[in-house]
Amino acid sequence: MRRWNGWGDDTITYPLHASALRFLEQRVGPGAPPGDVVFADAVAQVPPSRLPIHPLVSPDPADRLRHARGQSLPDWVALRGGRIGAFPDGVAYPASDADVRELIRYAEAIGARLIPYGGGTSVVGHVNVGQFAKLPYSPPTLTVDLSRLNRLRRLDATSGLATFGAGVIGPDLEAQLRAAGFTLGHFPQSFEYSTLGGWIATRSCGQQSLGYGRIERLFAGGHVETPAGSLDLPSFPASAAGPDLRELVLGSEGRLGIITEATVRVTPLPEHEEFRAVFFPTWEQAQTAARAIVQARLPLSMLRVSTTAETEITLALAGHDNLIAALESLLKVRGAGDGKCMALLGLTGREGMVKAARHEALGLTADHRGVHVGETFGKQWHAGRFRTPYLRNALWELGYAIDTLETATDWANVPLMVDAIEAALHVALAETGERVHVFTHLSHLYPYGSSIYTTYLFRLAADPDETLARWQAMKTAASAAIVARGGTISHQHGVGADHAPYLGAEKGALGLRAIRELCAVFDPGGIMNAGKLVE
Amino acid sequence: MRRWNGWGDDTITYPLHASALRFLEQRVGPGAPPGDVVFADAVAQVPPSRLPIHPLVSPDPADRLRHARGQSLPDWVALRGGRIGAFPDGVAYPASDADVRELIRYAEAIGARLIPYGGGTSVVGHVNVGQFAKLPYSPPTLTVDLSRLNRLRRLDATSGLATFGAGVIGPDLEAQLRAAGFTLGHFPQSFEYSTLGGWIATRSCGQQSLGYGRIERLFAGGHVETPAGSLDLPSFPASAAGPDLRELVLGSEGRLGIITEATVRVTPLPEHEEFRAVFFPTWEQAQTAARAIVQARLPLSMLRVSTTAETEITLALAGHDNLIAALESLLKVRGAGDGKCMALLGLTGREGMVKAARHEALGLTADHRGVHVGETFGKQWHAGRFRTPYLRNALWELGYAIDTLETATDWANVPLMVDAIEAALHVALAETGERVHVFTHLSHLYPYGSSIYTTYLFRLAADPDETLARWQAMKTAASAAIVARGGTISHQHGVGADHAPYLGAEKGALGLRAIRELCAVFDPGGIMNAGKLVE
Repeated sequence: MRRWNGWGDDTITYPLHASALRFLEQRVGPGAPPGDVVFADAVAQVPPSRLPIHPLVSPDPADRLRHARGQSLPDWVALRGGRIGAFPDGVAYPASDADVRELIRYAEAIGARLIPYGGGTSVVGHVNVGQFAKLPYSPPTLTVDLSRLNRLRRLDATSGLATFGAGVIGPDLEAQLRAAGFTLGHFPQSFEYSTLGGWIATRSCGQQSLGYGRIERLFAGGHVETPAGSLDLPSFPASAAGPDLRELVLGSEGRLGIITEATVRVTPLPEHEEFRAVFFPTWEQAQTAARAIVQARLPLSMLRVSTTAETEITLALAGHDNLIAALESLLKVRGAGDGKCMALLGLTGREGMVKAARHEALGLTADHRGVHVGETFGKQWHAGRFRTPYLRNALWELGYAIDTLETATDWANVPLMVDAIEAALHVALAETGERVHVFTHLSHLYPYGSSIYTTYLFRLAADPDETLARWQAMKTAASAAIVARGGTISHQHGVGADHAPYLGAEKGALGLRAIRELCAVFDPGGIMNAGKLVE
Repeated sequence: MRRWNGWGDDTITYPLHASALRFLEQRVGPGAPPGDVVFADAVAQVPPSRLPIHPLVSPDPADRLRHARGQSLPDWVALRGGRIGAFPDGVAYPASDADVRELIRYAEAIGARLIPYGGGTSVVGHVNVGQFAKLPYSPPTLTVDLSRLNRLRRLDATSGLATFGAGVIGPDLEAQLRAAGFTLGHFPQSFEYSTLGGWIATRSCGQQSLGYGRIERLFAGGHVETPAGSLDLPSFPASAAGPDLRELVLGSEGRLGIITEATVRVTPLPEHEEFRAVFFPTWEQAQTAARAIVQARLPLSMLRVSTTAETEITLALAGHDNLIAALESLLKVRGAGDGKCMALLGLTGREGMVKAARHEALGLTADHRGVHVGETFGKQWHAGRFRTPYLRNALWELGYAIDTLETATDWANVPLMVDAIEAALHVALAETGERVHVFTHLSHLYPYGSSIYTTYLFRLAADPDETLARWQAMKTAASAAIVARGGTISHQHGVGADHAPYLGAEKGALGLRAIRELCAVFDPGGIMNAGKLVE
C-alpha cells in the first residue's frame, strides 16, 4: 500500500546504520521523533463534499485525503502534523478522453475547479487545493486522477514511437515498452509513482537525460482536452511550421487542460550499460572534468558530480564500512589527496560506442587527477536509484527533515551559484541556533551549463508550524539567491505554487502576460488548476 | 555585388557541362532562354514612397526593389518577368535596439506595417509586400533590414555561449567564432546570406543538424523588440519553469516583433571532420541503412541519402566523366548492381569518437549492401555545398526552372510519402504536355523519422504567368499530398505566405487560435509582418 503521508510503498524501509546516525547527530544535533497524526484522524478532518453526485466522481473522504497533497516538505508537514487545511471535494477517475471531456463540462456547469493529478509526486504544490483560500469564496474542487489512462495504445516499432494513456506510471510504461524491446529512458527519482502526463506538464528530467534527453525531447505529440476544445499535437520528427505548440503544453502544469495521451520517442533496449565512479581531490577538479566531458560531446547517458560534503554523506549513509575503507586505501595509493568528490559516469548503448566513450571520458577525468575506481559505486547507485526518496521517511521518523532545491545556470556561473545557494541555506537558520547540513551535486549536465541540486537537512521542531517556518526561511533565502544570480527557478521540479512568486524574474512582465493569455485561450473560465504556475 | 533577381554573388557562375545539357534535354526537352527584364526597368516600376521622411528610413527605389522579394520560385518569376507588383515604401537599417524601438513607434504613429528582413533568402514569401493587396486599403510598408546588427557582442568561452546581433549572416558569424576557436555548426544552404535572426524566426535547419542540432537547440536566448515592449529570453541550459517562451519566438516569422540579439550555443572547432560516400543498389536499402544508423544513435554530424534519380542527376551535373567511370567500375567489381543510391555520411569531432562512429556506421551500411567509396564525393559535396543554389541561375538562363519542396514524417510513413510527393509532381503538368524531372533525398534524419527534400525541374514558358501557373499546379498538388499523408507542411523553410493555407491542417483550429492570440499579445495593432504565418 502506498504511504498516505510519506514516500512510497509502506513495506519498503530505508534502515540507517549506526554510523549514519552518529553522522547526523554530529552535524545537526540529536533528533526527536515527531508526533505525527494517524490516518483515521486525518480522514476525520475531511469535510462533506460540496459536489453534486456524478458517476465518475468519488466523494470518499479517504480518497480525498490521499489526493489533497503532494510530496513537498510543506505537504509532509501538513499531512504528518494534521494541518492539511483544504481537501478536494471529490476525486474522479476517468477512463477515456470522453470521460475527461464530460468532467470538464460537469465542472463548468457547477462552477467547480479541476486539478489534474498524475502520481501526486509534485514537490512544489502542483496538486494542492489550498491556494483557493486566497479567493473571496472557495469554489468546490475536483481532482482528476488519470491513473486509469495507463495503456500502451500504439507502438510504431519502425519509427520508434509509442503512444500511451498519459496517466501511465514509470514502471508500467517501461514494462510495456520492454516487452517490445524498447525503453523511453526517462527515470526521474519519482519514477515509481510519477506519470507520463505529469512529466510533460512539469518538464521533467530523468537521471539519464544526458543520453535520452529531457521529456521535452522525448514528447513527440499527443492529445489534450481543454475547456475550449481538443488539441491534437502531431508527432513530426521536426517541423518549421511556426511556433511549436508542444512547448506550450510542456510545463503547462494543468493550466491549459488535461493531457490524456502522449506519443513518446523510444529507443531500442541498449546492448550495454555501465555506471562508473571516479574520485577527484577537489570540487573544482571534479567540476572542470565534468565540464570537459560534456563539452567534448561524448555520448554518455549520465554524469553527476558531488561536492566533498555530498560525497561524505553518501558514503556515511551507505554504511558499507569495509567498502569505504578499501576506497580510502585505493585513493591513498593513487595519491588522490585528502578531499574527495565523487563523479558517476553512465555509459549506455552499442558496445563499440560505449568502449570509445569510456576511453575518452576516463582520459579526461585522469587529466584532472580523477581516480577511476570501477563499477562498484555505480552499481550501488543504479540499484538504489529509486530508493533514495525512502530515506526521507526514515529521517523524518528520527526527527530530521530533508529537502532539495535545484536550478540550472551557465557553466561560468556554476561555482558561484553553488556557493550562493549553500551560503543562503546556512545563514537562514543562524538566528534560531539550529544547524543545517547542506550538500550539492551537479546532476544534469549540458555542454553550456549544468543543473545544481542542493540538499539540506535540519531538525524537526516539536511544533509543526515551527518546522514549516524553518523550511520557509531556508527556501526563501535560497530562491532569492538563485534569482539574484540569474539561475532558473526550476530545472526539473516545475513552478506549482511554491515557485510561482519567482517566475516573473525569468519570464518578464510581457512573458508572463503571454502565458496568462495562453491559459485564457484554452481555459477561458479559469477552471484548470487555477493559482498554479501563474496567478 | 549580390544579384538582384537571382541567387548570390554575380561574379559566381555555375557552368554546366555538355553532358548535363544533354541530360536536361532528354528529361524535360530543350529550354529557351527567357526574356528577363533588366534592373533599370525594374527600378522604374517602383512607385513614390508614401512614408514621411525619417533619418533611419531610405526611400531609394533601388533599395526598395532589392527588398521587395525573396528567393522563392514565384519571387524569381516576379523579378525576372517584371511582375513585382508591390514594393516596400522604404527600407530602414537600424543599428541598435533603440533604433528598432524607434522604428516600431514610427510605424505605429503613421499606420505603417513592418517587415523584418534578414538575408532575404526566404523561399516561402516571408519578406514580400504583396499580401496586403488583400486588404481593402494598402497601408504603407517599411522593410526593416537588420544587416547592421551583425557583431559578436559577448563570448562566454567557459559556457560555450556567444551573443550576436541578430542580423549577422552565416559567414560573418562563423568567422567571428572561428577566431575564438568555436563554431555554431549551422549551415543551411542559404548560409552565405541568411541571418541568425532569420534562422530563429523560421526554425532553420543546417546541413549538419544531425550533429549540431536544429536552430531550436542552438538558440539559447535573446532579445526581441515588440510593439508591446521588450522580451528578454535568458540563456539557461534548461528550465522546467513553465512553457518555453523561446519556442514562441522560434518560428514566429516576424509576427511577434523583431529579434535584435541572440545567444547561441557554440562548440569548440572539431579536431577532425570527414564526409564519406556509400552507394546502395536500391533506394529501399539506402533508406533502411540510414534509418539503422540514426536509430543506433551514432554520433554522425550528417547523413543524407538520395534516390536513384537524384544520384543520377547529381553525377550528371558534376560532369566529372572520369570520376564517374571509375565509380561505375568500382561498383561493378563490388557487385553493387545496376541501380545506385548515394548516401553521404558526415563525421565530426574528436578523433577517437569519429573512428568508432565510422566503424559502426560503415558496418551498418555494409549490412544493407552499401559500397563505401571513400571521401572523394564527400569532399566534392562539402566544397560545393553553398554553390548548389547558383545552379538555379544557370538553369534559368538556359530556360529551366528548378524548385524544391520539403516535409518531415515518421519513418513508417517515409517511403509512401516520397512516392506520394513525386507522383503528385509528375501528374500536375500532365495536361499541359510539359514534362517534369523529379528527384528526392532524405536530408535531415532523426531516430523517429526523416525530412524529405524533393526537387522538381521543368521548362520555363515564354510567358512568365504560364511559368507561374506550372509551378502553382505542382506546388499545390505536392502540398495537398503532404498534408493528406500527415507530413508537416515544412521541416525547414517555414510557413510565410506560400504555406499559410496548409498550417491549419497541423495546428488545428484551437492551435491556430492560440498562435493568433499570441501575436495579439505582442503586437496588438497587427503591424508586424501581417499576413504571414497566420492571417
